[in-house]
Amino acid sequence: MSNQNPVFIPGPTNIPDRLLNAMHMQTRDHRAPDFVETFAPVLNDCKRVFGTETGQVITFPSSGTGGWEAAVTNTLSPGDKVLIARYGMFSHRWIDLCQRHGLDVQVIECPWGDGAPADQFETALKADTEQQIKAVLVTHNETATGVRSDIGAVRKAMDNAGHPAMLFVDCVSSLASMPFDMDGWGVDIAVSGSQKGFMLATGMAILGVSQKALAAMETATLPRTFFDFRDMMAANANGGFPYTPPLQLIYGLKESLSMLFEEGLDNVYARHHRLAEGVRQAVAAWGLRLCANSPELASDTVSAIYVPEGFDSNELTDHAFNKYGVSYGIGLGEMNGKAFRIGHLGDLTDVMVLSGLATIEMAMADLNYPIELGSGVRAAQEFFRRTAAGQAIDTPAQSAA
Amino acid sequence: MSNQNPVFIPGPTNIPDRLLNAMHMQTRDHRAPDFVETFAPVLNDCKRVFGTETGQVITFPSSGTGGWEAAVTNTLSPGDKVLIARYGMFSHRWIDLCQRHGLDVQVIECPWGDGAPADQFETALKADTEQQIKAVLVTHNETATGVRSDIGAVRKAMDNAGHPAMLFVDCVSSLASMPFDMDGWGVDIAVSGSQKGFMLATGMAILGVSQKALAAMETATLPRTFFDFRDMMAANANGGFPYTPPLQLIYGLKESLSMLFEEGLDNVYARHHRLAEGVRQAVAAWGLRLCANSPELASDTVSAIYVPEGFDSNELTDHAFNKYGVSYGIGLGEMNGKAFRIGHLGDLTDVMVLSGLATIEMAMADLNYPIELGSGVRAAQEFFRRTAAGQAIDTPAQSAA
Amino acid sequence: MSNQNPVFIPGPTNIPDRLLNAMHMQTRDHRAPDFVETFAPVLNDCKRVFGTETGQVITFPSSGTGGWEAAVTNTLSPGDKVLIARYGMFSHRWIDLCQRHGLDVQVIECPWGDGAPADQFETALKADTEQQIKAVLVTHNETATGVRSDIGAVRKAMDNAGHPAMLFVDCVSSLASMPFDMDGWGVDIAVSGSQKGFMLATGMAILGVSQKALAAMETATLPRTFFDFRDMMAANANGGFPYTPPLQLIYGLKESLSMLFEEGLDNVYARHHRLAEGVRQAVAAWGLRLCANSPELASDTVSAIYVPEGFDSNELTDHAFNKYGVSYGIGLGEMNGKAFRIGHLGDLTDVMVLSGLATIEMAMADLNYPIELGSGVRAAQEFFRRTAAGQAIDTPAQSAA
Amino acid sequence: MSNQNPVFIPGPTNIPDRLLNAMHMQTRDHRAPDFVETFAPVLNDCKRVFGTETGQVITFPSSGTGGWEAAVTNTLSPGDKVLIARYGMFSHRWIDLCQRHGLDVQVIECPWGDGAPADQFETALKADTEQQIKAVLVTHNETATGVRSDIGAVRKAMDNAGHPAMLFVDCVSSLASMPFDMDGWGVDIAVSGSQKGFMLATGMAILGVSQKALAAMETATLPRTFFDFRDMMAANANGGFPYTPPLQLIYGLKESLSMLFEEGLDNVYARHHRLAEGVRQAVAAWGLRLCANSPELASDTVSAIYVPEGFDSNELTDHAFNKYGVSYGIGLGEMNGKAFRIGHLGDLTDVMVLSGLATIEMAMADLNYPIELGSGVRAAQEFFRRTAAGQAIDTPAQSAA
Repeated sequence: MSNQNPVFIPGPTNIPDRLLNAMHMQTRDHRAPDFVETFAPVLNDCKRVFGTETGQVITFPSSGTGGWEAAVTNTLSPGDKVLIARYGMFSHRWIDLCQRHGLDVQVIECPWGDGAPADQFETALKADTEQQIKAVLVTHNETATGVRSDIGAVRKAMDNAGHPAMLFVDCVSSLASMPFDMDGWGVDIAVSGSQKGFMLATGMAILGVSQKALAAMETATLPRTFFDFRDMMAANANGGFPYTPPLQLIYGLKESLSMLFEEGLDNVYARHHRLAEGVRQAVAAWGLRLCANSPELASDTVSAIYVPEGFDSNELTDHAFNKYGVSYGIGLGEMNGKAFRIGHLGDLTDVMVLSGLATIEMAMADLNYPIELGSGVRAAQEFFRRTAAGQAIDTPAQSAA
Repeated sequence: MSNQNPVFIPGPTNIPDRLLNAMHMQTRDHRAPDFVETFAPVLNDCKRVFGTETGQVITFPSSGTGGWEAAVTNTLSPGDKVLIARYGMFSHRWIDLCQRHGLDVQVIECPWGDGAPADQFETALKADTEQQIKAVLVTHNETATGVRSDIGAVRKAMDNAGHPAMLFVDCVSSLASMPFDMDGWGVDIAVSGSQKGFMLATGMAILGVSQKALAAMETATLPRTFFDFRDMMAANANGGFPYTPPLQLIYGLKESLSMLFEEGLDNVYARHHRLAEGVRQAVAAWGLRLCANSPELASDTVSAIYVPEGFDSNELTDHAFNKYGVSYGIGLGEMNGKAFRIGHLGDLTDVMVLSGLATIEMAMADLNYPIELGSGVRAAQEFFRRTAAGQAIDTPAQSAA
Repeated sequence: MSNQNPVFIPGPTNIPDRLLNAMHMQTRDHRAPDFVETFAPVLNDCKRVFGTETGQVITFPSSGTGGWEAAVTNTLSPGDKVLIARYGMFSHRWIDLCQRHGLDVQVIECPWGDGAPADQFETALKADTEQQIKAVLVTHNETATGVRSDIGAVRKAMDNAGHPAMLFVDCVSSLASMPFDMDGWGVDIAVSGSQKGFMLATGMAILGVSQKALAAMETATLPRTFFDFRDMMAANANGGFPYTPPLQLIYGLKESLSMLFEEGLDNVYARHHRLAEGVRQAVAAWGLRLCANSPELASDTVSAIYVPEGFDSNELTDHAFNKYGVSYGIGLGEMNGKAFRIGHLGDLTDVMVLSGLATIEMAMADLNYPIELGSGVRAAQEFFRRTAAGQAIDTPAQSAA
Repeated sequence: MSNQNPVFIPGPTNIPDRLLNAMHMQTRDHRAPDFVETFAPVLNDCKRVFGTETGQVITFPSSGTGGWEAAVTNTLSPGDKVLIARYGMFSHRWIDLCQRHGLDVQVIECPWGDGAPADQFETALKADTEQQIKAVLVTHNETATGVRSDIGAVRKAMDNAGHPAMLFVDCVSSLASMPFDMDGWGVDIAVSGSQKGFMLATGMAILGVSQKALAAMETATLPRTFFDFRDMMAANANGGFPYTPPLQLIYGLKESLSMLFEEGLDNVYARHHRLAEGVRQAVAAWGLRLCANSPELASDTVSAIYVPEGFDSNELTDHAFNKYGVSYGIGLGEMNGKAFRIGHLGDLTDVMVLSGLATIEMAMADLNYPIELGSGVRAAQEFFRRTAAGQAIDTPAQSAA
């Protein structure tokens, strides 16, 4: 069986050949000038993707989970209070991490499928008259439910409450795929990784850190060494790393940034939105329902889709993999068995998306789902025809579609 | 725009990552023992793909066209008579090559869309009472029309005529994708290349040569040096090459053979047949017509499809490329403007084929073709569901499909 | 200028093409069966390299520093006492890490160039009558000084003292290059990484963990999430990962193990010893001195070499890089300016080593070092001639050399 | 054993990682616009390397031998007379090719080790009062003997004779490594390949063709199809190929040209000259003798070196390969057993050359050659020190060296 089928998991994404080649790189001396000359601009260029001019970018050779840990341990002390809402598997895990690191975690429980509850944050912050809450932690794109939260609204809630807490945002599965405005939204730490919008191999956490977070670093007492911002920044200042850097990923990131900037970040976001919308058209045509509780919450990088009552989503994804060799995201946590996910981020085209829709459709039909075979593909085809960027022809037939 | 969309040209094919890696190889000394130990088994293993035990395999660093030239120049002399039928662009080009090399070419003109005319060959050979025809040249798979000829029938015609002519077969776009029985069909030279069923980069002609053809080599006087079988065989006998060998392609071919044998040649053929049949189901659903003049002629590696009267197939393929970034084969020669081609050979899955069908369908709809959007995809989906090898589930819905 | 010169830094090492290709791998679904089937045997095969049958192998997407942190945070609690000797930059850094994580660190200061002081450990452990020391931390191969310590002697000292402390060993720059006997030496945690003896890209910490250490894990209260053994082991038990795994490195590790086992671990060790000995012959011929304070301490993976009084080793390594494009290790910590290092580990041959010796020799001559140009190369040539594995010829000249 | 040692065969050369990556390329449609946009500039940029403004560049998917055949068959007719001198294996083979293609070959026999005999050419051309000689064929760099001929002198001889014959030059192992002035020297066809100075995989013949040769094409009657200039030029004019192009090599050539132009052609030539001179210094220090009969004939891409009387060069090269894993060129033809060759072209540095010298020196010492171990390396070291481009330091010691 070929391994050339695209994956439709919500990250790691399909890696463009150009980036595979960029990472196909022999060892170079990371203390030599050419590394220094490469690394500093890469860090700097990442700022554009985070949307920050005043912040700093810090990377670690780890996954995004390591990025969460770095955010927390560099700015907080044991017993510090943080405010966080649980509305999916990844917000759940961040809560767990905070608890394991001895923080006092105030959890707002939300229905999975909801986004960050700006109004409840506002209420909670207003109630915190002694300003003991040191940070509000928000998952921008809840990969488990396919929900994108409104970070600007969270910022507004914090401002309304006049609360000085820091704002930490998990943007692992949104950065470089959906607009992110770190400075505009007043984000203090934004946590991302190499394997999603940057289309690279897994292995690098990429963080945007505000000056306010850097100030907090000075008094934070949670223990950290590997993830210590101070060591990393001191080494980075001279173009170096406090330990052995992940050379191939750094050169890969350089090329990834080139690809993103060549396409144009706005075009990248528009492409993701278009592909996501095509998937949503298919979901509607199937008569199925997104996990996202309202249309404006629907993520442009992953769609979580409820299977009909009486069906098991794990059986569906297993079947699609075993019979057709295509991977989709399984339902996580509460969604396990109830929903499957189609990842549509990174290096992806409408053509590739159609193969993902066609395949899951076959799998659903095989399992007697009450859907019409071909209906989702056709709905996506119609949408993609109307919206193709390269579109050179505009005929009545198309307008009507 | 991503370059990750599959190509649907009838070769060069999509190259599996495994073979790209195998060809990603630093220079080694081609006079050193490890080359010798690699090359000899590769040549030998190719025999299984040709279906020959008594023949010999000879390769050249060239395209398939070079393979044709090698076949002709190594076995024939200026003025020798050859018999060949024209029923597509590639048989046409082989005729042209023979004429340019000073052969006396007896051409049987056939409608494009027909296969090799065994009965006309028989007639012509019977008429050649002085046995001046030295070779019958047949294109096994006419890439221009998507027609596979019956080589066994040609052999039977030659036997019926009791004619001693050699039988040369162009199997460039069929070998390693469709069954080939060199010994069983009495083929004297079979010409193929690296970039089709072998799924490699272009650059190597691969020939199966019978003992009878090798005997003819001794008296043939057409000039040749680069393509001289004698030099190549003498060098090959010691594991070497008469000039610098295409190392990367040779190591790639070794890996390609491993892939083919791991999957099993019969499974490879079955996979090609299944994917081709899926395409044909789509064509039928669109209400379009194959160039192949009868169903049993339809090729399993490429489908040539007439566009409806009044449409221009070049506009269609251009549009598909420009708007959706997917390449299909254009109509060649007589078919230009009248037909487009979908290549379905090499490293390909049902999932990839569906993306190719969905895309050309969008393009046709854009251009107001009288087809129903989604109809071809659905027909292929139904067929692929019923016939998937990994199929673990057999439900009423599937049986009904 | 070509970037094809080997590096002579003591890791990351030169990466064999075979491993670069193994890491040149498209995304696959890490929740799919083929990942599970790949990953479990990789972990298991690593045990052979650690020399453990009773222990367990745990990996993290991080550098070796992350491995240190994982060892400490998974088994110890704030305020726990650890015993550790400082005799180079890497033991120094591990001390620092322990201190930053709130441990009570009893440091034995040793001259740089010495190895682990087994007798002093014994004394200290005997003095710890209340057995408050929870762990003894030892750097097997001190990359900064080119010193290999005798871990067996440390174990003996611990046994002599009848002390139940755990034994943690940093074998980042020794594992898979020099013999390691985790079970025989009673090592509780051995910390290594992907980029040294495994010849891969940086990005994976690889730990061998004893049952005793796993038991300690249950009561340890240092906070950890990313590096938590429990999450990792629970996920690994099902063939999975608690977060996104570094897929390319895992497949690379699989191939690395194949290479190591094909060559044979004993042959790998012998090769490293031979190459190191060649370097040491050159150092002697130059009239220079190793940092290792006695010959039996000399490392087989890196040689740290004092420059003569009045010379600056940083100028030397800069010059070698700028003029000849070759990287050597700089002197670290106390050794900065006083010593340079030649890494000779990983994918390396005698031929490559000779180019490293010839180049640093040119650089020293350029800077008027009191050495004879060519002398080091000749000494190494003589040694390599006598000891080449493939040696087919044994002449008087060679015996005399 | 590692396969990372450089090769010292005179081509194919070591391939830079950058070019391996450039050739690591998925199939694209060769009829699509992006191929057209890539290919035309590549052909054009090659002109700079040939040193022609008025000529045309034509490529074939073949080895250099195919390039010879293309030169001859496109411009000559059976029975045409050509003048050619035999002074090595490659001139010998070109003679053989001409004879097999039915040309009337006037051979001037020269001692191997000599270059092209301009004066004898002049004499022969003057004697050809009926101007029956259609072409003079010269091997610029005789790879077998390490001799570079003076093409300008040949041109002058032809001019002195007032003879209108065409001038064909084999520059397979010189182009892109040593200066070549096609227009200045009045070369009509220059034949090269991808695997030498262009540092690519084998598989592409690259020809520079003058307008005069193109005119001869119109009347030449030697049969050719695969190698037909006319078909190729007609297709190239539209950015296409008359058959399937070797896509990976074409994109590789594009990148190779970028590398050559970035370094600067003059710097490329100077680098080759410097590396060659280093090798020659070593040869002199060993007390051995080049095959080149005078110093100004010594090639900058390959040195052919006589072994002392009583020694067998094949034993030497076998020994070097078997014991040390390094490949050198064997003696070809008359030189077999008497000489070995060190290739020093393509992607090579002084550092790499030193490893090649050190290794063959060890091999010679193993076999009791009367050389001083280390002497060649030291001589080359001294030369390389004095001449390094990046040299930042100029000390008395260096000036004295």
